[in-house]
Order: sequence, then structure tokens, then C-alpha cells
Amino acid sequence: MSLDRLMEGIMKKQNPTVAGLDPKLSYIPAHIKAESFAQHGKNLEGAAAALLAYNKGLIDALCDIVPAVKPQAAYYEMYGWPGVKALAETIAYAKEKGLFVITDGKRNDIGATMEAYAAAHLGETDVEGESFTAFGADALTVNGYLGTDGIAPLLKVCAQKDAGIFVLAKTSNPSSGEFQDQMLHAMYEPLYRAMGNMCQIWGKELPGRYGYTGVGAVVGATYPKQLAELRQALPDTFFLVPGYGTQGGGAEDVAPAFDKFGGGAVVNSSRAILCAWQKENCEPADYAGAARREAIRMRDALMARLGGISLPV
Amino acid sequence: MSLDRLMEGIMKKQNPTVAGLDPKLSYIPAHIKAESFAQHGKNLEGAAAALLAYNKGLIDALCDIVPAVKPQAAYYEMYGWPGVKALAETIAYAKEKGLFVITDGKRNDIGATMEAYAAAHLGETDVEGESFTAFGADALTVNGYLGTDGIAPLLKVCAQKDAGIFVLAKTSNPSSGEFQDQMLHAMYEPLYRAMGNMCQIWGKELPGRYGYTGVGAVVGATYPKQLAELRQALPDTFFLVPGYGTQGGGAEDVAPAFDKFGGGAVVNSSRAILCAWQKENCEPADYAGAARREAIRMRDALMARLGGISLPV
Repeated sequence: MSLDRLMEGIMKKQNPTVAGLDPKLSYIPAHIKAESFAQHGKNLEGAAAALLAYNKGLIDALCDIVPAVKPQAAYYEMYGWPGVKALAETIAYAKEKGLFVITDGKRNDIGATMEAYAAAHLGETDVEGESFTAFGADALTVNGYLGTDGIAPLLKVCAQKDAGIFVLAKTSNPSSGEFQDQMLHAMYEPLYRAMGNMCQIWGKELPGRYGYTGVGAVVGATYPKQLAELRQALPDTFFLVPGYGTQGGGAEDVAPAFDKFGGGAVVNSSRAILCAWQKENCEPADYAGAARREAIRMRDALMARLGGISLPV
Repeated sequence: MSLDRLMEGIMKKQNPTVAGLDPKLSYIPAHIKAESFAQHGKNLEGAAAALLAYNKGLIDALCDIVPAVKPQAAYYEMYGWPGVKALAETIAYAKEKGLFVITDGKRNDIGATMEAYAAAHLGETDVEGESFTAFGADALTVNGYLGTDGIAPLLKVCAQKDAGIFVLAKTSNPSSGEFQDQMLHAMYEPLYRAMGNMCQIWGKELPGRYGYTGVGAVVGATYPKQLAELRQALPDTFFLVPGYGTQGGGAEDVAPAFDKFGGGAVVNSSRAILCAWQKENCEPADYAGAARREAIRMRDALMARLGGISLPV
């Protein structure tokens, strides 16, 4: 249940990575853009068509290497509703190809409004008795600042749809400490730790088969000490680890995120994979091949450090 | 600059309220839904068409009474990309009618990703040298858990586009205290207050003409003591106050949000206005009239308490 399907994919492919699909126009080869603009115009529709074509090429090239993709909602919303349509189509295509899809939306609200987000991103939408899938990802990143009122509505949908969430605990950015590192007076532990503790509690409603619940936590690769601390403190909480590669974290930095079976975490890389063709300086037509080569390099670097990944049953 | 246009609208209409546009299908009169389903089918497109028609009727009926509307993104995302298209069209229509539009999206991320959200919701999107408006609201609600890295990209766009943001400080829900009320060890003040203090600091980059910056804070009507405390502590920070009406706050509860000129805050009401026709049990065709009557009742209740609203120059 919950994040188990992600863990099974990681184990099967022996690769604990997720490819971030954050498609900026500047990452997309000129021939894809030219074709999209010719068909739809040089406008939001044309840009969205380019995003989708680029993503499909990446998904085709990555789907037997990585277990999961993580589209970042902001890069689609930026292109208005056509971009958001491209997000829905990207999710559907990735699922067709057997990938676990994490929508990175960092959504947060309360009660009926959070129920609407849960239906939108993980569940189904009722239109007077008929059900439709709006976005239909397998997991969603969420922000827990509003407390249990903002998380409970998600848990219900996760249980129904075999989906999961990742709650921001310690994010990878330089200023994450402004609030997240503040020591709380009553508990004498930092806010990120208190957020992690709540992930343990919320997760009890979504038990999994492999020791981890359906409530994961986001913990940045750029803070290896906190990664190690939280891995120890949150034995039932699976980690989504951003900040590998371009943001500065390496295989050694993310090693503390994993348990002794090589499980317990999935590491995200976005730009390094998306822009591999620019860094390799290869033919633009080979952008997906370059992404695949970079994904293999990342897998091999992580697996060299981890040895292997097994699932305790 | 920034939130000044909102304050000018409040002063002109002598009404410190914002109408929440959170259109659930169950709020929409049957004749609107029947027409939309007949045209588009009983599906996400049909539902989205009903949302838009319902919103336009509300906006027509409210635009000379209230200064602002606040569409809640979740209720549009729930209907997939057609719903998100209806959000964009609702925003455009409300702006045409002279309303200040606050998109309630509680967005949060860092760096380039937050820049993408800022472009999406407040700014413009560049498509190879040509600019397009994706959603184009006047203000956006945001979650500050990630610190300055998540706010700075918004400030730049706000300065360019004469837009503003509202950062969640103390939210209106029962569990908001789980994190927000935690006393921070170093400052010996609660997290919501530390978040408020950062609004004061972030706001320095967006000075306004009437004593309030372009960085506002969300403070719930359900916590009048904290409202009073924050009004005192954050003299440059304009408040968006949810939780009036259905969530339990009344005119007396929100009074502490205002300054001595009757300024400094805008109070949101969603369900009470949207569902006024159901509560009044009037003809469904008169739903917008009922919304207008409820908006006038709310205005009169608040203004009876405040006396009048003036802008210090």
C-alpha cells in the first residue's frame, strides 16, 4: 500500500532515484520547439506542446532505468492551462510506461479545500455521480505548516487509491533553517524534527508492507547530518531527497538517507538529467539518450555506495 | 504599489471584505449545470463551464459591493485542466470588472521553481521573447516554511507587476497550533509570530503608499487574541483574515485585525456568500442576488463595528 509500489520499483530496477521533470523551455532542443510552435503558434499552447513532446522522449528513454518521475507543478502552471494540460498528459504517459509519478506541488490547505487538492492530484473527481481523473499521480509533495487538518484529508484518499504523500521536513535550500532549524521550546528539538515526528504519527493510518508508511518526508541532500538524524529518528518514514547533483549533494551525502537494506529513500535529480545533452554537448536530437546516460551514471554512483537494495518482508 | 490597489478599493467601496470564489458543484444552481453539461457533456469540461458561468454571475452581482475576490486554486484543479482554464478565465473576468484578485494557492518552493510560480500567478511567462499572462492575479497566498529562498523570487515579480503576496502566519483551522503555536527557544515567541516578523522584513522591499507593504500575512478570524497581538507587532503588514462566518468568526472577532483608521485588513467570506441562495431558500435563478444581499449584510456588520475606513497618506 501507499509508497510500497515505489519501493518495489526501486528494488526491481535496483535504482533509488527519481527523475525530476522540470522542463524549462531553455532545456528543450530547438527542433522540438520549432515543431510545436509551427503547429500551435509561439504562445502558451506551443510551449506546452514542446514540454509534452520533450517529456515523452525523456520518459521513453528513462522508463527502464528509473522507477519514478517527479514533475514539478510550477513549470507547468507557468504556461497557464495549456501547461497544466501538459502536466496531466505527462503524468498519464509516465504511468502508462510503468513509472511511479510524484507530483511536486507542495500543496497545503485545510478541510474541504485539502480534500479538493487530494481529489485533484491523487484521487478522483466526482461530477454528479461520475468519476474522472484530474491529474492522477501516485504521490504528492505537501507542506505541513497547517497541521493535521491539512494532512488528514490526504490520508483518506491515499488509502482509497494506494497513493502516498511526502511532507516537507528539512528542505535542501540555504535558507531552510530560518524556520525549520528553530529549536522548539517545549520539545527542545528543531521544527523539522517535529514535522518528521508528525509524519511518523500520520503514517500510522497508511501502514506499508516493507516497514515504511504512505507518509514520507522531504529531506534535502544538502544537509547530510540532518538526513542521518532523521533516518534514525523516523524508522517508518520513507524519504524523498532533493538537492543531489546541481544543488551540491553527492552519493556520499545522501548515503545516510538509506537503511541497512539500501532502502528507505529515493533521491531526486532534475537538471543534471534534463540538461545532460547540453552538458555532454551532444546532438540535440540525442537529448533523451544523454538523459539516459546521466541517469545510469547516477544510478551507478548511488549503487556503488549502497551495494544493493533489498526489501525486508 | 503592491497591496495599495486593494486598500484603495476597500476605501472606495467602504468595505474591507473579499469574496472567496470556491465553487463546489453542489453550490451551483441546477439550471447552470444542466446548460453546461448539455454543451460540454457531464465531465470535467462540463463542470468547469458550470464553474465559470456561476462565477461570472457572482462577479457581476458583487463587483460594485466588494473590492476583491479570492479564487481558491484547489476547487479549480479538482476539475483538471478545464478547471484550471476556468480559474484563468475567472481571474480575467474579475479584473475586467475592476476587482482585485487574490489567488489562494498557498504556493511554496525555492529559487527557479518559485520564479516559475511567480511568473504563473502574478507575472508574465516568456515564450522565446514574447510575453504571455498565464493566470495574472493581483496577489497570491504563499507558505513561508522554506524561508527567504521561497519568498525573494516573488518580491521581484511583485515590484515589476504592482502585485502582492499574503504569507500564512496563523491559519484559522483548529490544528493550526500544532506547529504555528510552538514557542521558539531562541526568540521565545511562537512560530506564527516569527513568520509575521519575517513578513515585516520581506515587506521592506515592497513599500506602500498607505503604511502597509506588499507582503501581507494570513491570520485567522478564529484566533482574535493572536490577531490583536500581530496587529500590534506588525505595523507594516496588511492582513488577509479567513474564518469569518461559516468557520465561526464574527465582526467582533475580526475587529482586532484593523488599525485605528479601519484599515490594515481584509476579511474573507466564501461559503456564506456562495451558498446564500441555499440558505435564503430563494429561487436558484436569484443565486447572485442572494450572494449580493449576503455581501451587503457582511459589509454592514463590519462597517457598523469599524465606523469608517480612511487611508492615512
